[in-house]
Amino acid sequence: MTAMRTINIGLIGLGTVGMGLVKALNAKRPILKQRMGLDLNLRLVSEKYWGRKRDVRIPSSMRAKDTRHILSDPGIDIVVELIGGCGDARKYIIEALRRGKHVVTANKALLAEHGREIFALAKMKKADLYYEASVCGAIPIIKTLREGLASNRIESIFGIVNGTCNYILSKMTDSGVDFKDALREAQKLGYAEANPSLDIEGVDSAHKLAILAAAASGGWVPFPSVYIEGITHVGLRDIQFASEFEYVIKLLAIFKQEGARIEARVHPTLIPKSHLLASVRGAHNAVCVNGEPAGEIVLYGSGAGQKPTSSAVLSDIIDIALNIVSGSCGRVPVISGDGTGKEIKKIGDIETQYYLRFSVIDRPGVLAGITGVLGRTQISIASLLQTERKAGGVVPVVMMTHKARERNMQRALSLIDRLPFVKAKTVLIRVEESL
Amino acid sequence: MTAMRTINIGLIGLGTVGMGLVKALNAKRPILKQRMGLDLNLRLVSEKYWGRKRDVRIPSSMRAKDTRHILSDPGIDIVVELIGGCGDARKYIIEALRRGKHVVTANKALLAEHGREIFALAKMKKADLYYEASVCGAIPIIKTLREGLASNRIESIFGIVNGTCNYILSKMTDSGVDFKDALREAQKLGYAEANPSLDIEGVDSAHKLAILAAAASGGWVPFPSVYIEGITHVGLRDIQFASEFEYVIKLLAIFKQEGARIEARVHPTLIPKSHLLASVRGAHNAVCVNGEPAGEIVLYGSGAGQKPTSSAVLSDIIDIALNIVSGSCGRVPVISGDGTGKEIKKIGDIETQYYLRFSVIDRPGVLAGITGVLGRTQISIASLLQTERKAGGVVPVVMMTHKARERNMQRALSLIDRLPFVKAKTVLIRVEESL
Repeated sequence: MTAMRTINIGLIGLGTVGMGLVKALNAKRPILKQRMGLDLNLRLVSEKYWGRKRDVRIPSSMRAKDTRHILSDPGIDIVVELIGGCGDARKYIIEALRRGKHVVTANKALLAEHGREIFALAKMKKADLYYEASVCGAIPIIKTLREGLASNRIESIFGIVNGTCNYILSKMTDSGVDFKDALREAQKLGYAEANPSLDIEGVDSAHKLAILAAAASGGWVPFPSVYIEGITHVGLRDIQFASEFEYVIKLLAIFKQEGARIEARVHPTLIPKSHLLASVRGAHNAVCVNGEPAGEIVLYGSGAGQKPTSSAVLSDIIDIALNIVSGSCGRVPVISGDGTGKEIKKIGDIETQYYLRFSVIDRPGVLAGITGVLGRTQISIASLLQTERKAGGVVPVVMMTHKARERNMQRALSLIDRLPFVKAKTVLIRVEESL
Repeated sequence: MTAMRTINIGLIGLGTVGMGLVKALNAKRPILKQRMGLDLNLRLVSEKYWGRKRDVRIPSSMRAKDTRHILSDPGIDIVVELIGGCGDARKYIIEALRRGKHVVTANKALLAEHGREIFALAKMKKADLYYEASVCGAIPIIKTLREGLASNRIESIFGIVNGTCNYILSKMTDSGVDFKDALREAQKLGYAEANPSLDIEGVDSAHKLAILAAAASGGWVPFPSVYIEGITHVGLRDIQFASEFEYVIKLLAIFKQEGARIEARVHPTLIPKSHLLASVRGAHNAVCVNGEPAGEIVLYGSGAGQKPTSSAVLSDIIDIALNIVSGSCGRVPVISGDGTGKEIKKIGDIETQYYLRFSVIDRPGVLAGITGVLGRTQISIASLLQTERKAGGVVPVVMMTHKARERNMQRALSLIDRLPFVKAKTVLIRVEESL
């Protein structure tokens, strides 16, 4: 062990996670000295709103008047960015890297949308850029993809990466309430924000998916090419019909890699009740990774919140500190690929199974009309459910299809939805049979 | 990136996992060169029985006539030990470390029983000693404890770490067959060996638990102080009664750490059906870790077999190779504690809830006799089930207790089992209510 070296940390942003980091640093400093020979010293903190009431005390000598003081302090080794967003955060991280500092960030939007630029800079500057907390809170999924499964070709990832959506879907499933009531409950419990759109529209999941895809494939996926569909159109009755077919509905972030072709999509998905992901309830996160030769690995835990997120941030800091102490910064290559040579499949090109719920007039000939269109578009039906009867009224007809190409499926539905006895837009939810 | 440096590997043991490693190395070598700048070269292989038919070819120039040739070859950087056991393996690893080589091993028995000596040597020689494959195959649990949760105090670990036992218990639960039939099925499918005692008696799980406890606490637990109880006494009716109380029975490896006191025990355990570990079926492994501040993390995957195990071995090799290339061997401190100051609780001192199945004559006054003893030994009953009636015959009475001290419980049972109406040794299975 080399003589103990103090690692100086500059923290940008003293919000919920920032405060958690300060608490964790205080609590762990003695044991990190003893076990790892690391002295992690929080040197400067910058924060826009010092007035807010907080349960951690930062002495005035540690309060940076300006974030630039952190960036320009030559004694600071690691800059921790916890303000989020793609504005100031981007500027600060770029400036920190330019000045040869290492960076830890929890900023998923920034990495998903500007990761390519930022990682290229880190590589050039031989700086470490760690981001475990950007995906699934305390779950060490980035480290697992980058190191634990370094020997693997990652074939697919299926992630429940948004706690808000998983809480809502679990609540609908377990308590039989509809989307609106489940969302209200999530807001009451603090699992959903007052404006929940980033979560329920799937954008947050897509940010995390882009990062997972990069870590798994070694190259950045252009964020606009990620297909995104949220959970606002998932009805309670869809959850109930799915259950009759032995499936549950989860919002999944899906990555697949076959040769040079990549799929990256976020959408509600029917998965078999018997799969471990189906048992992930409440605001928890879980990621299922299929690697060759590892096989299937699932990681589960708390995806958000002060403590879980600060656990990930501090583990990243420790990793970088060990690199600094042992003189091995840049030891693990940053994501360096630029996606060249990888083709991101358009949603129309994917092939999967489908759950379809038609709203049709209950009268003879209706099924023949629908199945006729499906047959002409090369879609074959695996099973069919028509439980309600209401002669002349509107009833649901539910089908599970075999594998079909999405483009054919969309064409079929555009034809079917124009049939005179179809009274509402058909609900389509994709199925993943073998995760 | 430094210029590409060839890392030379010596492999001891070309059994199932060794062959998997050779295949994985061949398959991944190009991408590891490209992505990580690492050239991993298998230089020498030693094996006792070259005659055996294999699906990998090792040219004669790579066959070591004697394992000592691997150990004495100054060009070999990393020695991979895959022969298992505490005899030759121990000698080879010690010799390799003495000569300044780094070591990767999958040898759980050796680390559990001689880890303290071996890690002390590695530390002295500033050599890396990695052992991911020794616990739970492809699941990166060691890396997670050592690095991903480096910021955490590990409060507890609950592991399903033996695929054979989990297959047997799952089979009994799902198909309603008894232990013997489930074991026979496991043997037919290759999940259990002809002599399954190391697995079903809990010794294999205890080896893994000792390693997990060391990684989690930073100090070696003396192997003889691990409490070990296998699954041979778990009856089909216990599984069925447990189910009526909404529990499943799993063989768990349990580690708890409170202040300086440690628990390390392996035994069949009732866990709530709603916990994720209850959904782990077949020969799979899963480990639930409770850390502060991370909260609960579960890792799941294949715990054995050629491919999953070789995934872990190769990931360890990559980790060490990155250390060699960046000049940072010993970057992550090896487990250095010697257990000093940690007290391993005797099984009599633990406190938990219990499932009890009494075999009693069905006649008035029996329950009063049993509950009288329990009351006098400070054990309170949480629920009771007596479904069969057979006046004058032997029937089961099942109880779930509140938390009690094991010593009291054992005293109560020794008294109860001597009562005239108790016709067989009472079955005791411990319960973990909140994992």
